[in-house]
Amino acid sequence: MIRFAVLGCGRIGRMHARNIHAHPRAELAAVYDIAAEAAEATAAELGVKVAGSVETVLADPDIEAVLIASSTDTHVDLLTRAAKARKAILCEKPIDLDIGRVEACWREIGPLQPFVMLGFNRRFDPSFKALRDRVTAGEIGKLEQVVITSRDPAPAPAEYLKGSGGLFRDMTIHDFDMARYLAGDIVEVQAMGANLIDPGIEAIGDIDAAMVVLRAASGALVHINNSRRCAYGYDQRIEAFGEKGMLLAGNRRPTEVERWGKDATAAKDPILHFFIERYREAYDAEIDHFVDCLEKGRKPLAGFEEGYEALKLADAALESLRTGRVVRLSR
Amino acid sequence: MIRFAVLGCGRIGRMHARNIHAHPRAELAAVYDIAAEAAEATAAELGVKVAGSVETVLADPDIEAVLIASSTDTHVDLLTRAAKARKAILCEKPIDLDIGRVEACWREIGPLQPFVMLGFNRRFDPSFKALRDRVTAGEIGKLEQVVITSRDPAPAPAEYLKGSGGLFRDMTIHDFDMARYLAGDIVEVQAMGANLIDPGIEAIGDIDAAMVVLRAASGALVHINNSRRCAYGYDQRIEAFGEKGMLLAGNRRPTEVERWGKDATAAKDPILHFFIERYREAYDAEIDHFVDCLEKGRKPLAGFEEGYEALKLADAALESLRTGRVVRLSR
Amino acid sequence: MIRFAVLGCGRIGRMHARNIHAHPRAELAAVYDIAAEAAEATAAELGVKVAGSVETVLADPDIEAVLIASSTDTHVDLLTRAAKARKAILCEKPIDLDIGRVEACWREIGPLQPFVMLGFNRRFDPSFKALRDRVTAGEIGKLEQVVITSRDPAPAPAEYLKGSGGLFRDMTIHDFDMARYLAGDIVEVQAMGANLIDPGIEAIGDIDAAMVVLRAASGALVHINNSRRCAYGYDQRIEAFGEKGMLLAGNRRPTEVERWGKDATAAKDPILHFFIERYREAYDAEIDHFVDCLEKGRKPLAGFEEGYEALKLADAALESLRTGRVVRLSR
Amino acid sequence: MIRFAVLGCGRIGRMHARNIHAHPRAELAAVYDIAAEAAEATAAELGVKVAGSVETVLADPDIEAVLIASSTDTHVDLLTRAAKARKAILCEKPIDLDIGRVEACWREIGPLQPFVMLGFNRRFDPSFKALRDRVTAGEIGKLEQVVITSRDPAPAPAEYLKGSGGLFRDMTIHDFDMARYLAGDIVEVQAMGANLIDPGIEAIGDIDAAMVVLRAASGALVHINNSRRCAYGYDQRIEAFGEKGMLLAGNRRPTEVERWGKDATAAKDPILHFFIERYREAYDAEIDHFVDCLEKGRKPLAGFEEGYEALKLADAALESLRTGRVVRLSR
Repeated sequence: MIRFAVLGCGRIGRMHARNIHAHPRAELAAVYDIAAEAAEATAAELGVKVAGSVETVLADPDIEAVLIASSTDTHVDLLTRAAKARKAILCEKPIDLDIGRVEACWREIGPLQPFVMLGFNRRFDPSFKALRDRVTAGEIGKLEQVVITSRDPAPAPAEYLKGSGGLFRDMTIHDFDMARYLAGDIVEVQAMGANLIDPGIEAIGDIDAAMVVLRAASGALVHINNSRRCAYGYDQRIEAFGEKGMLLAGNRRPTEVERWGKDATAAKDPILHFFIERYREAYDAEIDHFVDCLEKGRKPLAGFEEGYEALKLADAALESLRTGRVVRLSR
Repeated sequence: MIRFAVLGCGRIGRMHARNIHAHPRAELAAVYDIAAEAAEATAAELGVKVAGSVETVLADPDIEAVLIASSTDTHVDLLTRAAKARKAILCEKPIDLDIGRVEACWREIGPLQPFVMLGFNRRFDPSFKALRDRVTAGEIGKLEQVVITSRDPAPAPAEYLKGSGGLFRDMTIHDFDMARYLAGDIVEVQAMGANLIDPGIEAIGDIDAAMVVLRAASGALVHINNSRRCAYGYDQRIEAFGEKGMLLAGNRRPTEVERWGKDATAAKDPILHFFIERYREAYDAEIDHFVDCLEKGRKPLAGFEEGYEALKLADAALESLRTGRVVRLSR
Repeated sequence: MIRFAVLGCGRIGRMHARNIHAHPRAELAAVYDIAAEAAEATAAELGVKVAGSVETVLADPDIEAVLIASSTDTHVDLLTRAAKARKAILCEKPIDLDIGRVEACWREIGPLQPFVMLGFNRRFDPSFKALRDRVTAGEIGKLEQVVITSRDPAPAPAEYLKGSGGLFRDMTIHDFDMARYLAGDIVEVQAMGANLIDPGIEAIGDIDAAMVVLRAASGALVHINNSRRCAYGYDQRIEAFGEKGMLLAGNRRPTEVERWGKDATAAKDPILHFFIERYREAYDAEIDHFVDCLEKGRKPLAGFEEGYEALKLADAALESLRTGRVVRLSR
Repeated sequence: MIRFAVLGCGRIGRMHARNIHAHPRAELAAVYDIAAEAAEATAAELGVKVAGSVETVLADPDIEAVLIASSTDTHVDLLTRAAKARKAILCEKPIDLDIGRVEACWREIGPLQPFVMLGFNRRFDPSFKALRDRVTAGEIGKLEQVVITSRDPAPAPAEYLKGSGGLFRDMTIHDFDMARYLAGDIVEVQAMGANLIDPGIEAIGDIDAAMVVLRAASGALVHINNSRRCAYGYDQRIEAFGEKGMLLAGNRRPTEVERWGKDATAAKDPILHFFIERYREAYDAEIDHFVDCLEKGRKPLAGFEEGYEALKLADAALESLRTGRVVRLSR
């Protein structure tokens, strides 16, 4: 039984708190949020205690693991303190928006060999994971091309996006990680961005649509397309193409009902709009993987390094966008 | 090069005339219709001559084959005369609505060993044919269950249906033949009918919806469902279930486009409404099969016997409907 | 918070125990099984107590509800005693294999107006429920035809099936209930059965495949096809056809991955084989519905009457099978 | 009735000859090929005459239109001579591999205002055309993103590819035209290429896989991915994404049969491998469009300019590949 504290009780923190609470080999010991009432609401719902401070949590020898779901700008500080307190850490992405701070963080905590897992939830989606396992098992031979479609249902307010680090660091970062999960290390990045949706996003100097092409060290090419708005829901698909064929991982729907009518046939449900529903099984599996790795002394599927590498790709994409040049990554 | 005459230049006769005209190894020599202007229109379109009478056609030694597409009540007479004139015959279904007349016809022409093919077009549909070939090749092991869905887009006027012989002889007859094509000889028939669509059909003593269950001599069970009206087009599907799996043959659409929108996703085109479009490839293949069998001295896939057996099943279904009993067919 | 006891800790009882335990507004107070070790295993897993006897459970004023998941031949006795003890009851189907005993049971407990829900899990499957809700909402106009496909992955041993009451009472009973759920009261039953799969099933006088046609009081026709073995998994589909179109509810797969290769394209996962996985969401929703109805004083979606009516249809199908006649149900 | 001569009787010329022959408002008057026996075989098959020389064809006042299907290096010369002879021209793509020669050709023939249609067959594919018509009709609102998948079944021999002008001019040229057909004028090109399939292709300095991103003047982003080899056939798909949703145009299969078995479910046929089969309907429609435009004095959907613009994009992609920079097109 792994005892957890959850730091940050916003929407995603509360979801993680519930998942930990429901996990048969995990126990939620405490929750904390800088906004006391968020922590209290979560604590009340799940019947756990509210920690008075981060210090209390880190000092508690009964707490083995912390889940960091507070705002991005606190991640490095909490990661560092938790690592020093010898807690196992499950940290929501991104580590930070600044690659320099991420590097500095690792210089400080790396020597402690902390157990850190990054919350790249999509690696745990049953369809994406099955696709990746089948690619790895050689079902389509050598992987040659990947197409990642990743479109959000609707943009967050420009106000929020102002602090998000921009499309590549905030949204594409998941797709950069997925590219690495499927195709391995990336050596070249080309990006094109556009403002097609929300003038408020342009006003803050960000883009709301993008097409990126990557080259992997393996030789494989990867295409990512992003949109901040998608009329039919949260569109999340992957196509893996190789020597022997292709694997597609599609969207999941609430039911398997289809309609045949005068105007259209075989029409299926709209796909889910909300990331917490879309990736429900993935978030469950993420907690399970964390517990499992911790119990068995294994390295998690996504560690600190994965957070760092994805951010490097986001920065490279931004550079390509600015210069109109392919960016070559030194390794 | 097989030289044909087409007898009957209504909608279906004209279509056959065009297909014969376009076939590389067939030649349309003449057309005939009791309504001279129908014959003339077809002749003008295709640049062929109008025959002055059936006699002229049958007496012409250069005409090797006749396609009978006139009204059902003339089929037996034309079949008999054409057989006596030693023409090869492609006759639209049904042979006749009266089983006694069909039997009498065969007693008369059977000894002449005529080359007769019945127009059961669905046997030539690429999807149904592929399904049947794969079943025959053993892909799903022993065939155990068949489900045939057969729904017309809209009922013909009750006035027309009055002379049609009723749902089973007019519409289900295709499905009875399909059941035999897939599962072989049928030994039991159970039928339930209903009036759900058009009160005019009930008024003439006919039904407009039906569910039939058949047992084949092989042991396989076959279900047929029929409706005289179908909002989304001409619904023609077959499911073949066996020891090792299932094969489904679905509807064909004009394009492969699908739409993803707010209210529905992966919505495809409506299916085709008109039988001549739906079975275009099947009608082409039917002429090709006739020419091929004639050239090579082979028995066609659907001969006089198939027309006779399908009609026997229609009569048995009608008896089951009237008596509420399963009807056992003696062989 | 509804406090439950589970009577019967076999495969399905244990699953229900887990679902009750996980439900936020239910509490598992005790489990009981005639085989003490089954009860102990379940109790240990979930941290609840083992009841020493049925009497103890029924006498416990803190237990509000009992879930009956013991062997079929004990259902009537437990239902009767639980009703007299004023417990709310969730009883696995069937009530009994003998319609006379079911009627006698109701004569005895009916006057007590017990809260009884029958475990017709399929009514709670998200796809089937959505299909039914959309039919009810008029999306396809008047319902005219229903096709229910229901095929088990593999037959239980003939030894077990000997006591099952036969295919119609053991397996089709779910489909009879589904027919009523969708089309309402049934007035005619026609059935054809076959032995296609397991000679051991024929040896005990049972069938292993069947096709049934029903007529509803509404006029709608319903077809059910069953097989005791299905190579590609647990095939559970429904087609509802009406004036304005068709709704199909298909099978659910573990992932949304498809494969494109040399021999086949767009090939999806096999479907689930095991009923507990296939209907996982349905079983969860079933407990939720029970709790909800009990809390709000509502009639459950499937009560004692639904168990009785489904059994009557099974008996009528058996009579049709024996007599080769359509069976008309008096109401 | 438009009278045609076909210049070039290789695989594609012969196919066009057949299609012209079968068209109700076209007549094939003559065929010519530098290799006399190719012309004779086509002439014999279709019962038309062999022209003794290009001069003979161009001098024949009864020939209204010429279809140029000879080798690429002869296109400019034949186009020029045919334009001067006042023939209507249907020319296979590309006009030439050298943009300078294409420009010079137009300078010479432009003033004659010739009727020239380029053989961009994909514009006439029923699915791609329907997708485009629906985008144009506003079904998905403003077009924002396009994803074009275009993979050949197998590479031509490196020997042949040596003279092809490279992947972008030989293969992607169709996709560049499709991008323009859907999204209008293109203003930026970014390309990444790879050698993943055939070392012989690398040896001749060409690539065998590519990912390209384009920006249209409208703001839309377009992604193209190409592979010279595709295990499951000739993969030709388009995704159009806009404000109100998405339209997908998929691959067509020979039948609508799907297989459900132990290892996979809903598995469909492999897709077609051969471009002449895949685009059969498109090639028919192309001839029909040419005849129609000529009869009605309309501008064809793809004229000389489309051939020129697609080649410019191919050259820009090549430049991007060489420089690693986005190439901006001046207009």
